[in-house]
Amino acid sequence: MNEKKEASFHPFYERTVESKPIFEGRMISLQVDTVTLPNGETATREIVRHPGAVAVLALLDGRMLVVEQFRKPLEKVQVEIPAGKLDPGEQPEAAAIRELEEETGYRARSIRHLHSFSTSPGFAEEVLHLYVTEDLEPGEAHLDEEEFLTCEAVTLEQALAYIAEGRICDAKTLLAVYAWRLRELTGSF
Amino acid sequence: MNEKKEASFHPFYERTVESKPIFEGRMISLQVDTVTLPNGETATREIVRHPGAVAVLALLDGRMLVVEQFRKPLEKVQVEIPAGKLDPGEQPEAAAIRELEEETGYRARSIRHLHSFSTSPGFAEEVLHLYVTEDLEPGEAHLDEEEFLTCEAVTLEQALAYIAEGRICDAKTLLAVYAWRLRELTGSF
Repeated sequence: MNEKKEASFHPFYERTVESKPIFEGRMISLQVDTVTLPNGETATREIVRHPGAVAVLALLDGRMLVVEQFRKPLEKVQVEIPAGKLDPGEQPEAAAIRELEEETGYRARSIRHLHSFSTSPGFAEEVLHLYVTEDLEPGEAHLDEEEFLTCEAVTLEQALAYIAEGRICDAKTLLAVYAWRLRELTGSF
Repeated sequence: MNEKKEASFHPFYERTVESKPIFEGRMISLQVDTVTLPNGETATREIVRHPGAVAVLALLDGRMLVVEQFRKPLEKVQVEIPAGKLDPGEQPEAAAIRELEEETGYRARSIRHLHSFSTSPGFAEEVLHLYVTEDLEPGEAHLDEEEFLTCEAVTLEQALAYIAEGRICDAKTLLAVYAWRLRELTGSF
């Protein structure tokens, strides 16, 4: 039995009565579902649909590759690990390798899955697949037409300083730095 | 100069030409902005507005308080640390103490800020403020009308097992468990 089927037998399951599409965009879509609650009442749920995303902790000679870019939803410039959304039908591992090369110019000869997690389970469907690689070779950077960013490679100490300064302040990059720090302390991810 | 003002001088800054409201909900709203890119071209940005959220790593006698609930956007039951969105005008610390008591029945006598981070910087404004407390006293659980969850206290080993099983699989809870594990190894958060 898969996870969604299983969830439908859970006492807290919310059955969909109606699903109303609100918006269909290039990156996300929005729907409002009417659901039956466990107590029999009805409620609405605002749901952002998203194809899923990937991010990569890429370590090059002991330094982490990061990109600096402007994030319109936050009106801020942030330093993050390379990331992007899945293309239609694309497998997460292939997307991770593609995004890493496009944004940094480095190709992963091998890559390992670390975690898959929901970013905002209260309103968004998005699941982010986090990968790690230390097996890099020069490749070819190639940004999307609407993408502007610069890449740098930082030590763990620099990454921790970026966190303290607020330049690194997104969930996936924090998680990647924590995972890296744990590896330094314990020897494994 | 504040962060947003500063960002407007960054070479990657995207100036808003037009902002089109699409949807105004109870939890989120959606707008599509037309922006001028650094190369002078225009593009659209799909932006989910959100009031911000809080979450708490609450340790009770060496166990982490977690709640199990159904997450409609994922159609899944997940185990997460207590969390919720900010009420209008509410300060994050007050919201963290409130949400913790509402969902778990434990009141934090003191609480400490750990990180504030964006959850989905590509499309969402949401910033989540993560707190930690080990200073708890019995309080009064009080769930929202539309909220159904159960609370338990897990050891670090159980939390790591939940991660391996996929029962814990959201960004804030993974971060909290990593922070907890780092504290066990280094003595500090």
